Amino acid sequence: MADLLTPDELEARLRHVGETRYHHLHPFQLRLQSGACSRGEIEAWALNRYLYQACIPQKDAAILARMEDAQMRRDWRQRIIDHDGEREGEGGIAKWLKLTDDLGLDREAVVSGRLALPATKFAVNAYLSFVKDKSLLEAIASSLTELFSPMVIKTRVSGMLANYDFITPETLAYFTARPVQAKRDSDFALAYVKENAKTPEQQQAAIGALEFKCSMLWAMLDALEHAYLYAQPWPDAFVPADAPAKREAAE
Amino acid sequence: MADLLTPDELEARLRHVGETRYHHLHPFQLRLQSGACSRGEIEAWALNRYLYQACIPQKDAAILARMEDAQMRRDWRQRIIDHDGEREGEGGIAKWLKLTDDLGLDREAVVSGRLALPATKFAVNAYLSFVKDKSLLEAIASSLTELFSPMVIKTRVSGMLANYDFITPETLAYFTARPVQAKRDSDFALAYVKENAKTPEQQQAAIGALEFKCSMLWAMLDALEHAYLYAQPWPDAFVPADAPAKREAAE
Repeated sequence: MADLLTPDELEARLRHVGETRYHHLHPFQLRLQSGACSRGEIEAWALNRYLYQACIPQKDAAILARMEDAQMRRDWRQRIIDHDGEREGEGGIAKWLKLTDDLGLDREAVVSGRLALPATKFAVNAYLSFVKDKSLLEAIASSLTELFSPMVIKTRVSGMLANYDFITPETLAYFTARPVQAKRDSDFALAYVKENAKTPEQQQAAIGALEFKCSMLWAMLDALEHAYLYAQPWPDAFVPADAPAKREAAE
Repeated sequence: MADLLTPDELEARLRHVGETRYHHLHPFQLRLQSGACSRGEIEAWALNRYLYQACIPQKDAAILARMEDAQMRRDWRQRIIDHDGEREGEGGIAKWLKLTDDLGLDREAVVSGRLALPATKFAVNAYLSFVKDKSLLEAIASSLTELFSPMVIKTRVSGMLANYDFITPETLAYFTARPVQAKRDSDFALAYVKENAKTPEQQQAAIGALEFKCSMLWAMLDALEHAYLYAQPWPDAFVPADAPAKREAAE
């Protein structure tokens, strides 16, 4: 059985999960920020990742619904506001749609998810199930990927701006607000996990929850890389206009 | 809006889904039956697919739990018996474990799922969610991949026996019983869907359910192909003993 860790040892273990499993290490992420992606690959990335962005307020509402403490709910509800905004056109989801709009993607097709890869849908569905079915501690611990996101956002934004002439700072407006929000949110979640994971079992569950979340983000990039680099997308999924002929021939 | 189809037109549409989307067309399936797979790839296939096999009686129980008609439940419950058997060591899941045993895989590792690819778990989870959350008609229609399985089983078994000296008829005992069971089960499900999909919306939902199920089986093979042919498996997933050194180096 695992030993009981001090809160700081637990934090170190959680940070190690990020260092070894967060998607900043994924080949598709490296390709995206280095300028190696085709326009179609970036379109596929933005279209698929929309489903993840769109699920965030739903997963936060599912977590909120499980909190018995009013102050915790007051803290957590800001996440929903950040993503949904105060009115139509505001918030993180609207900013992600600015990205897909600027890439020329049809908004109805993006929002409906009908062109997303099946594996993207399954990963997002797994995340929503996880925060509903696991303990509140695990649901909160799964949000700790935000400890690592400011780092990847900085590299991704500067890399995409430097390497793709069709990407402007306005296109990437989503990412401007995120590092400050992510820092505030992950400070809160990390303090909660360090205080409430009191047994070796709870600590291992929190570590496992963060591994799960990393695996879900990783699987989304695996699916993109497979469909748009190595193989062919599922017949009902998005086919970029610049796709090689072999892909169109398979339709 | 879609037109109302006759029952036979609906059957033709459902069979067309199989012809264009069932995993008999997947490159990994073709590789498996042609003898091109390494032993490690077959081990990874058997280990990951175990999770799908193991979920079958759970998904059938979820469907059974939604049936209000006793005769339908009497018919449907045989599926659970087929997979769970009458006692330990019998039934489809036990026969799948015979395959993983013969491949030399550790039974605890297989049954726990801890070495399976995250994408396999997400796909199986999506299937279980589907049969619980969608209509009973869609849940039953999603089982119609069994219309197509006898074909793929025949080719897979003969191909694997001809091409891999470590595979014997006993290793593949799971598949011996399946074609007869699948024929009986899919006859029942097809008759139900043809009789109960009475509106264009219900007919489209039934077709969509079968597309979903095909996409779930396809995504499992995509994940295997990606992890074991093109890229690297998730760090916590199975690494075959015959894996190229690059994979081990990444650990």
